[in-house]
Amino acid sequence: MQIAVVGASDCTPEEYAAAREVGSLIAVNLGTLICGGMGGVMEAACKGAKEQGGLTVGILPDLGDGNPYLDVRVRSGMGYSRNVVLVQSADAVIAVGGKYGTLSEIAIALKLKKPVFGYRTWDIDGVFNCATPEETVVMAVRAARLCSPPENRDKR
Amino acid sequence: MQIAVVGASDCTPEEYAAAREVGSLIAVNLGTLICGGMGGVMEAACKGAKEQGGLTVGILPDLGDGNPYLDVRVRSGMGYSRNVVLVQSADAVIAVGGKYGTLSEIAIALKLKKPVFGYRTWDIDGVFNCATPEETVVMAVRAARLCSPPENRDKR
Amino acid sequence: MQIAVVGASDCTPEEYAAAREVGSLIAVNLGTLICGGMGGVMEAACKGAKEQGGLTVGILPDLGDGNPYLDVRVRSGMGYSRNVVLVQSADAVIAVGGKYGTLSEIAIALKLKKPVFGYRTWDIDGVFNCATPEETVVMAVRAARLCSPPENRDKR
Amino acid sequence: MQIAVVGASDCTPEEYAAAREVGSLIAVNLGTLICGGMGGVMEAACKGAKEQGGLTVGILPDLGDGNPYLDVRVRSGMGYSRNVVLVQSADAVIAVGGKYGTLSEIAIALKLKKPVFGYRTWDIDGVFNCATPEETVVMAVRAARLCSPPENRDKR
Repeated sequence: MQIAVVGASDCTPEEYAAAREVGSLIAVNLGTLICGGMGGVMEAACKGAKEQGGLTVGILPDLGDGNPYLDVRVRSGMGYSRNVVLVQSADAVIAVGGKYGTLSEIAIALKLKKPVFGYRTWDIDGVFNCATPEETVVMAVRAARLCSPPENRDKR
Repeated sequence: MQIAVVGASDCTPEEYAAAREVGSLIAVNLGTLICGGMGGVMEAACKGAKEQGGLTVGILPDLGDGNPYLDVRVRSGMGYSRNVVLVQSADAVIAVGGKYGTLSEIAIALKLKKPVFGYRTWDIDGVFNCATPEETVVMAVRAARLCSPPENRDKR
Repeated sequence: MQIAVVGASDCTPEEYAAAREVGSLIAVNLGTLICGGMGGVMEAACKGAKEQGGLTVGILPDLGDGNPYLDVRVRSGMGYSRNVVLVQSADAVIAVGGKYGTLSEIAIALKLKKPVFGYRTWDIDGVFNCATPEETVVMAVRAARLCSPPENRDKR
Repeated sequence: MQIAVVGASDCTPEEYAAAREVGSLIAVNLGTLICGGMGGVMEAACKGAKEQGGLTVGILPDLGDGNPYLDVRVRSGMGYSRNVVLVQSADAVIAVGGKYGTLSEIAIALKLKKPVFGYRTWDIDGVFNCATPEETVVMAVRAARLCSPPENRDKR
């Protein structure tokens, strides 16, 4: 179960705290956290996941190392095109805050019919906006389990 | 001057007519039409441009030939990631109608601070919605001329 | 008919002259020249093609403008991954000199069963090495005509 | 430490056995195995790594699930362009057998100045060909440790 967390690299302290909680809860639910690998919401989610012993994957826009909480670094070197690769790799997507980059990820996710859960993010038809960070993860984990093929369930 | 036309491959007759007019006017203004190369709005814009002797470029998602009105076929083979490449290549972006794929292109364009003009498309902060197809081209051509570096102007 | 010219951005004067001749002859044969859009062999081929009124396309690794002889600029922003997009877009590939980047393009072209013609380039099984720049173009044009579907022939 | 194993999806039994040993030894050395995620040499390396409790990452060409021994699935959807992303993500590259696809990966790796170790693979200037699968891993682990920045060492 791979859950993507998307949001801005330049975020508010409140978004950072929310993303960290999201990352923690993904790890507690044995999900693999995948993200764009950079700072802000991405870093916060990775930090939260690592605090719970989770597995974190960064699909980086460049050839660098990204944030310090990544277990796996995919150096895509393809800039914002990596947003598409990230979303394609996800069984469910959680958006925390975010601006135009996040909107592009939400749009691609909806295009691909991936379940998208939001916390204080864009109000786009098709996004399920949640009241708390916890609710986004509960919903995303449930959706990811429903969507992923049976042979892949409980594999990690 | 490269102007991108984005919109759904599955569009209404009215959107098809609008996109065809947009393509024609881009050609009349000596712009190069770039698009995703497939059907619907993309095909209509290419058809319009070719009717005026313009140059058309399709950045295709697959390894195929796209619509029949393309002069240049870039076979990206990268699916929706090509939306990002398309927008990056544009001096200005015109959106006609469109669904989630188009929204992803609008979002990336705004992220990259490209000028975006819309006709009956998403109402997103930053998109300049126009009343007619003609107005989108007038505005886009003006914006593209302002944005492109002087040494590139009037080159074709 | 889209013919790719591949080779190093840092080339010898002899390679530059050969690539310029290759570009000229592609234009004379009404082929569209596609290349990586940068300097050296790529620039030389574009220069030669423009001197004959040909059409030139650069699939750039970055978001820049590439060499000054490009009609169409595809700003892929995906670094060396663009080598694959370039080769995929070609009906035939001509390699002039070149180092590891060129080898990657030759390898992908052979993987995709594209015809590859070389002038003083890598001696890899599957590459048809030619004695003169002119021979590479004669062979490539013939191969491209054979490979491209009938409905696409003589279209430009 | 991320070590890429490259080779054909259609390989000989001997190559399969060699790749499995390579994967096992990467895991024993606490390296993360990254690969193209498909069958043949890629599957064998993943299988070997999982038998030793290692971490496996597949950078897939499509949107599918790849071989059954992957912990992380990056669904690039970009075909052979993913070869470049794979190599970019590696601290060292090991090639086992292989044809043109593998040659493209070797070429990109050398272009990027990544250390490349081969077992019964292409004899290209810059590749260090080894006598046994074990030797490729010993060499690759040493090279990866030298190349990766100190702050990233021993992190997993």
